[in-house]
Amino acid sequence: MQTVSTVALAGRDDLSLAYTPGVALVCEAIAADPSLTQHYTWVPNVVAIVSDGTAVLGLGDIGPAAAMPVMEGKAVLFKQFGGVDAVPICLDTTDTEEIIETVARLAPSFGGVNLEDISAPRCFEIEDRLKERLDIPVFHDDQHGTAVVALAALTNALRLTGRTASATRVVISGAGAAGVAIAKILLEAGIEDLAVTDRKGVVHSGRGDLTPVKKALAEITADRSGRTGSLADVLDGADVYLGVSGGTIPEEDVARMAPEAIIFAMANPTPEVHPEVAHRYARVVATGRSDFPNQINNVLAFPGIFRGAFEVHASAITEGMKVAAATALADLVGDDLAEDYVIPSPFDPRVGPAVAAAVSAAARADGVARA
Amino acid sequence: MQTVSTVALAGRDDLSLAYTPGVALVCEAIAADPSLTQHYTWVPNVVAIVSDGTAVLGLGDIGPAAAMPVMEGKAVLFKQFGGVDAVPICLDTTDTEEIIETVARLAPSFGGVNLEDISAPRCFEIEDRLKERLDIPVFHDDQHGTAVVALAALTNALRLTGRTASATRVVISGAGAAGVAIAKILLEAGIEDLAVTDRKGVVHSGRGDLTPVKKALAEITADRSGRTGSLADVLDGADVYLGVSGGTIPEEDVARMAPEAIIFAMANPTPEVHPEVAHRYARVVATGRSDFPNQINNVLAFPGIFRGAFEVHASAITEGMKVAAATALADLVGDDLAEDYVIPSPFDPRVGPAVAAAVSAAARADGVARA
Repeated sequence: MQTVSTVALAGRDDLSLAYTPGVALVCEAIAADPSLTQHYTWVPNVVAIVSDGTAVLGLGDIGPAAAMPVMEGKAVLFKQFGGVDAVPICLDTTDTEEIIETVARLAPSFGGVNLEDISAPRCFEIEDRLKERLDIPVFHDDQHGTAVVALAALTNALRLTGRTASATRVVISGAGAAGVAIAKILLEAGIEDLAVTDRKGVVHSGRGDLTPVKKALAEITADRSGRTGSLADVLDGADVYLGVSGGTIPEEDVARMAPEAIIFAMANPTPEVHPEVAHRYARVVATGRSDFPNQINNVLAFPGIFRGAFEVHASAITEGMKVAAATALADLVGDDLAEDYVIPSPFDPRVGPAVAAAVSAAARADGVARA
Repeated sequence: MQTVSTVALAGRDDLSLAYTPGVALVCEAIAADPSLTQHYTWVPNVVAIVSDGTAVLGLGDIGPAAAMPVMEGKAVLFKQFGGVDAVPICLDTTDTEEIIETVARLAPSFGGVNLEDISAPRCFEIEDRLKERLDIPVFHDDQHGTAVVALAALTNALRLTGRTASATRVVISGAGAAGVAIAKILLEAGIEDLAVTDRKGVVHSGRGDLTPVKKALAEITADRSGRTGSLADVLDGADVYLGVSGGTIPEEDVARMAPEAIIFAMANPTPEVHPEVAHRYARVVATGRSDFPNQINNVLAFPGIFRGAFEVHASAITEGMKVAAATALADLVGDDLAEDYVIPSPFDPRVGPAVAAAVSAAARADGVARA
């Protein structure tokens, strides 16, 4: 990554304009009307990618210095796929209050905040509190980016297998950031029979060991669907398995899923079910990997979502904007829909603009657009 | 400003390398050996330009949003004149402790910190405490950038007028960030007879109204030289006047300076003494403006200072590095030294490399180089 000027400084006059004394006029104009920040600075197009390095990829808590390559890589993707400028910020604190305070103090410098690789359950509170406090988009990509792309792929997989959302039984393994967000967006999209599992089995209110986040998750998922037991128990007869847990699922459990099952084994680099095994029992298989078809890759979502939010100077990213992004992604597949093509490629040039347009429109519909 | 990738992402393989799964290998390498941050991320070449918007140019406390154009302009100069990537950070707090905490938490993301337009006396404590706490360069440009360039120009002005540092009587008007730093670097460079004035006259320990910062300043300046009284009093017979105060000095006071006087009236946009007036009594005149000869412009210093510090992965910017930067700047003028050429132009292509080389060498000499 590097920073680059968008204008040339060829001589003394350019210097006087870009810096003192010329810049003083711009400062005075913004002091008089803060909304001019939108027109006279890079702020409205730049996102802070903020991490504390506690939940980096599958590597876990490796600290802020070692997390930087992920954030820098992500910044490159933001620019390439969304035209969004991005600054990687790795924080030397893992304290929830300190992270919230720090990001809030940085807010005048950025048009949006992308939270990244912050471990659960702190990530939930950090995002919620920052959303309340700031009037710029705050988006935890590990939750919502994954959820948007998973919903898009699932929408197409349901189409392909002739299922309706309300009659589809879904199992999610993994009750961390991604699992919680996927559960929420699926409910939003009409899925009713949903169970989420952690290492101890289905997350339901009958268990005495639930954190507040898992308790809330249980209430909107297994408590409604009435599912309990182990992952093997709920996989029996399930239509859809969505894995965001890591680990491996025994083949005999996969074998007991419903006919024409849908399996998204999204753990990286090792899917919970190897695609070869999954294909023995499922009609549609997706992973998080680029070397198999149907890659559930966040890069399909976050650049276009921020592009769309920035285009209309959105004050937030709403549930409606996320669902709109998923719908736009799903629709791009169109008539080419097939078992090995339920989600577009990240290099499909239509992706960023389509997601951005849908997100901008949803921001207007949801009343969070300011331009 | 914009952020740009330094590598192309042309397809799936590039994506797998820049982001998951390839990036995980880089993260693991840095987790095992944090010094690899230097080789595998943009961190070692990027400076955070941090302001709270309380002392912006001559505009004063205009807040973080309105300060952004200055920080963004400065980022452009860092890149153009020093090849240093820079991120403008305007903070939504003016509390000393909160600023220190925030910058310290950001530190893993940056190779250095340039503090900017933070009002005195908070700027002194913020810089001192961050220097103690962090192992990367922390540099308050309003103090040290101005001081370095002023010292460079003064060195040449003394040469031109045949003066030695120890026999030169200097008056500085302005006891804020720049005044304090100029006084310190002049003492470092051998000036002995020094008086600094604020609105109430010479800052000396006989006054009962001094802040702790001004008390310390008095002890190393007027208390040693024995100067007291008003600005007019100390200008009488002075060899050098350095203005970083704003306001206007009556012509009759200027007229009483020593023959072949040196006047640097650095307030922007209105010099304390108009160059036309100054020339009636002084042999060498400099201002902060680009439309007169001898512009004392920080851009001559900060890009090369950070370039030089970054080249050797310096852990700090020492007094020796600042004096080396000033000496390198002064030496560039060489045999072309003249009344209207005591300091090079910002567009002289030798400036950045010369300052950087001198600063790198001084970092090694001072034992703060780590590469």
